Amino acid sequence: VINEFGFLMGPIALTNSFNVYRVADALQDWSMDLHPEIAREQSGLICVVAECADDYLNDARGRHVQREAVFQAIETASGGMPAEGSVGGGTGDVTFGFKGGIGTASRLLPAALGGYTVATLVQSNFGIRENLHICGVPVGRELLHWQPEPPLRKNEGSCVMVIATDAPLSSRQLRRIARRAFLGQARTGGVARNGSGDLAIAFSTAQRIQRDAPSLTEKFEFIPDFREDTINALFQATTDVVEEAILNSLFASDTMTGRDDNIVYGLPLPEVAAILRKYGFPLVEA
Amino acid sequence: VINEFGFLMGPIALTNSFNVYRVADALQDWSMDLHPEIAREQSGLICVVAECADDYLNDARGRHVQREAVFQAIETASGGMPAEGSVGGGTGDVTFGFKGGIGTASRLLPAALGGYTVATLVQSNFGIRENLHICGVPVGRELLHWQPEPPLRKNEGSCVMVIATDAPLSSRQLRRIARRAFLGQARTGGVARNGSGDLAIAFSTAQRIQRDAPSLTEKFEFIPDFREDTINALFQATTDVVEEAILNSLFASDTMTGRDDNIVYGLPLPEVAAILRKYGFPLVEA
Amino acid sequence: VINEFGFLMGPIALTNSFNVYRVADALQDWSMDLHPEIAREQSGLICVVAECADDYLNDARGRHVQREAVFQAIETASGGMPAEGSVGGGTGDVTFGFKGGIGTASRLLPAALGGYTVATLVQSNFGIRENLHICGVPVGRELLHWQPEPPLRKNEGSCVMVIATDAPLSSRQLRRIARRAFLGQARTGGVARNGSGDLAIAFSTAQRIQRDAPSLTEKFEFIPDFREDTINALFQATTDVVEEAILNSLFASDTMTGRDDNIVYGLPLPEVAAILRKYGFPLVEA
Amino acid sequence: VINEFGFLMGPIALTNSFNVYRVADALQDWSMDLHPEIAREQSGLICVVAECADDYLNDARGRHVQREAVFQAIETASGGMPAEGSVGGGTGDVTFGFKGGIGTASRLLPAALGGYTVATLVQSNFGIRENLHICGVPVGRELLHWQPEPPLRKNEGSCVMVIATDAPLSSRQLRRIARRAFLGQARTGGVARNGSGDLAIAFSTAQRIQRDAPSLTEKFEFIPDFREDTINALFQATTDVVEEAILNSLFASDTMTGRDDNIVYGLPLPEVAAILRKYGFPLVEA
Repeated sequence: VINEFGFLMGPIALTNSFNVYRVADALQDWSMDLHPEIAREQSGLICVVAECADDYLNDARGRHVQREAVFQAIETASGGMPAEGSVGGGTGDVTFGFKGGIGTASRLLPAALGGYTVATLVQSNFGIRENLHICGVPVGRELLHWQPEPPLRKNEGSCVMVIATDAPLSSRQLRRIARRAFLGQARTGGVARNGSGDLAIAFSTAQRIQRDAPSLTEKFEFIPDFREDTINALFQATTDVVEEAILNSLFASDTMTGRDDNIVYGLPLPEVAAILRKYGFPLVEA
Repeated sequence: VINEFGFLMGPIALTNSFNVYRVADALQDWSMDLHPEIAREQSGLICVVAECADDYLNDARGRHVQREAVFQAIETASGGMPAEGSVGGGTGDVTFGFKGGIGTASRLLPAALGGYTVATLVQSNFGIRENLHICGVPVGRELLHWQPEPPLRKNEGSCVMVIATDAPLSSRQLRRIARRAFLGQARTGGVARNGSGDLAIAFSTAQRIQRDAPSLTEKFEFIPDFREDTINALFQATTDVVEEAILNSLFASDTMTGRDDNIVYGLPLPEVAAILRKYGFPLVEA
Repeated sequence: VINEFGFLMGPIALTNSFNVYRVADALQDWSMDLHPEIAREQSGLICVVAECADDYLNDARGRHVQREAVFQAIETASGGMPAEGSVGGGTGDVTFGFKGGIGTASRLLPAALGGYTVATLVQSNFGIRENLHICGVPVGRELLHWQPEPPLRKNEGSCVMVIATDAPLSSRQLRRIARRAFLGQARTGGVARNGSGDLAIAFSTAQRIQRDAPSLTEKFEFIPDFREDTINALFQATTDVVEEAILNSLFASDTMTGRDDNIVYGLPLPEVAAILRKYGFPLVEA
Repeated sequence: VINEFGFLMGPIALTNSFNVYRVADALQDWSMDLHPEIAREQSGLICVVAECADDYLNDARGRHVQREAVFQAIETASGGMPAEGSVGGGTGDVTFGFKGGIGTASRLLPAALGGYTVATLVQSNFGIRENLHICGVPVGRELLHWQPEPPLRKNEGSCVMVIATDAPLSSRQLRRIARRAFLGQARTGGVARNGSGDLAIAFSTAQRIQRDAPSLTEKFEFIPDFREDTINALFQATTDVVEEAILNSLFASDTMTGRDDNIVYGLPLPEVAAILRKYGFPLVEA
């Protein structure tokens, strides 16, 4: 529906696999309360819910997400820096065999390129340990025997990448943005393994579409694709923030013991620092 | 997920727009009960639910479909001729300004072309009256002023077309089949209006994929695309059954009064017969 | 490239299957002559060529289309009513077992819906005789034994549908328009047979994109998707003009004898009129 | 056509942007000579030609590729290790601001996973220097001022990635493979810049489809998607070989002076080795 009509409405919810319909149902309730004309004078409603499979740590069969949690999440949503790590839909996530979850990152383009912001929030739950790369350093291979990795089958998760920008882009251009998210994910070492339902969605806050516009046509402002410098800066920023946000989801998550005493270790930061130093990585020389 | 992995599992559920998540949730419950390994040893589950907006007749805000209805539908499912008209997810549907709903049709290919069956079940909820064509006859225009048509906004529904066959086809070929469903819909006069979320899904019963196959590779049987005579017969049958099933959804549905005394008239069969006769249509000359 | 960047440049050329690369090459020459900066300061160029297989009538192995023909076609292109029938790329086309080729049709929307024009030019080369329907009347079945149909394999052609409009639509919306073209084709009886490479492309003349715009952003004018009345009128017009243009390609084409004395009969208009009359079709009652 | 029918026929040709139609035309000639029934008894022919824009070094307006070059390329094609660097369609390519071109790499899966080979040949012509990463090391940033980079506009090329395997995969699975190629490209630092028409195509040599099979159905052998270990090994290999092949295209290409004395420097291998050593990369410690 989003690709067909080119707009979003309402919140984007992130949860775990087996609560996705329940969260969508609650999101629909919330939207219908807000819009009494829905299902009366008109039908259209878009509810966006994305998910990751967290059933190694989480008692996923328990279906513990209730509709009140959705209402609460919407009501308490605020601006500013989102919480990262083992929070929200990312609570039980596993990334590259370490504890993953929510990560975020953003970039501000130079004024000459429009001064736009590109930001992402990822729910990161994918990959096997040997594949983890941080700034290209094969951290996963170096930590292969550090502490046990969760059994292989359980690693098959997914990565949800939500990209937001205030750059005025059309839905066609936003799909171009969304596709670049996967390139950022690839830099961390991901190969989009068989069961990994990776998903990227990009939206722009620059313009709103009115449901009941008075005039037959409306003017929308876009950056032409011919403005290669700005488009490329947006693509670069998208790839960069997704890479950084996935790493942040690891940096912000601690070891967790879940259902049936299953344990997933948090990425050991001192060891990571030592590995980056061993690889002569200048950022950690200070 | 279906396009990515090329298979279906479990039932296909049809309901109305604002119960789609609730039905999916119940379908997931049913699947998880059947498969205790889901969300424990493995995560993968596909729940297929399609919907039409029935809120002109139905108290859609009331959300009257309960999970028990889903379980009951699965448990009482049987072979043989499905019920048509104002039943199940099609109860409140409106098609070409008349009462629509569930319709079905099938074709048997000649033995020389494989003797395969192509069958469809549609949930039909789309179109404005002036567009209705039966066997090409502009029945809708002839009946434009017969009884009032529901207000225009309400007509914007959708059409769900499920196509089943026992022909051994790959997922790629089944997508080719599914695309032909829209051509059958077009014959009835539909133009896929702005809000119409038409959807077609095709599956083959010829082969099952085992989750835990012992060997590294498996042999699957397919009709090669070079067998043009058989492929074309399957395409023709798909288009024909969808056209017929949509018409059957009209023929099998009676006038219904719904919420707020909204009324949708059933297609008046004697008038239709007279119109077809007027257009010299040989089928009704007898 | 068109879907990625959302614009067209230069002419759309129509030819037969085995000259498509030659025509594209000539089109590229023409574009490079016009734009000396191409392949020097910049690389981008879009050449659009569509084709139908005409090898039953045409000596397709002879490859008779020369680059001069392309230059001439561009230079002599003019406004007004295009030639129809056995002309240009449609010279050797076969449609529903009769002589096909080029057809065109257009609609003007009422002023209240914007007063826009939707026009099409089709190169029609598909279908088997028994499938031909004119205004829903099974003309093909009625004429099944009138004169021999070309052998079955040869019928497997395709249909190119070019839709032009002056309605201000985005590339996303134009893809919605293009998809409705297939519904118009379906009304004539086509089922998109196995070998039929049907193709639709839609463009709007409402706005031009400047290669070297001075400002960072530009304003574009679009009809919002929420203007359902206008969007639906555009969809309806698209479906209608494609149906009419395909029929016009038949009406405008006479019997042709081609290579190896292969013969394809033109649709016999008096017989068609009689059949329509037999089916009580009001248009021919006068 | 490849996605629709799921098979390839004939060679895959790689050339530069402005000769793509000419090469396709020659490929068509070659195919028609081989198959005298084409354009007589049947129409179907698939010619696959991919291209990169090489007009910074190459006199692209000169259109120097003649059809004889195509015939010669086909006739002299042989097994074994392909030539790499500034050869064939990659002669004038620029990659990350250095001289690029053709690269190749392959992996052999362990016997327990099927012992399959995954191989690639890339025509690499994309990226800006600051983005080049080798094994994650920011080689491009370290060499940013080493020698001048070609002007920015000219860098906007593309990357063609052809992946071949003897693993028995369906066309659906091969599309999954092809999509993973972009992840390997991303590891080298590419962000799929605005003008970059990156393209991946994957094929399997495991099975041939007969045009005139005697039986109605045929059996094909596939690796089920449930064989996650093998599928994942194929995905990993695809990503790895594409990364390596792009780097090989740089390693195998020397500085080249082209049209108008435009110069593109080859990647300086001693400097690269020093940079990798600086970053403590173990592979170069020996």
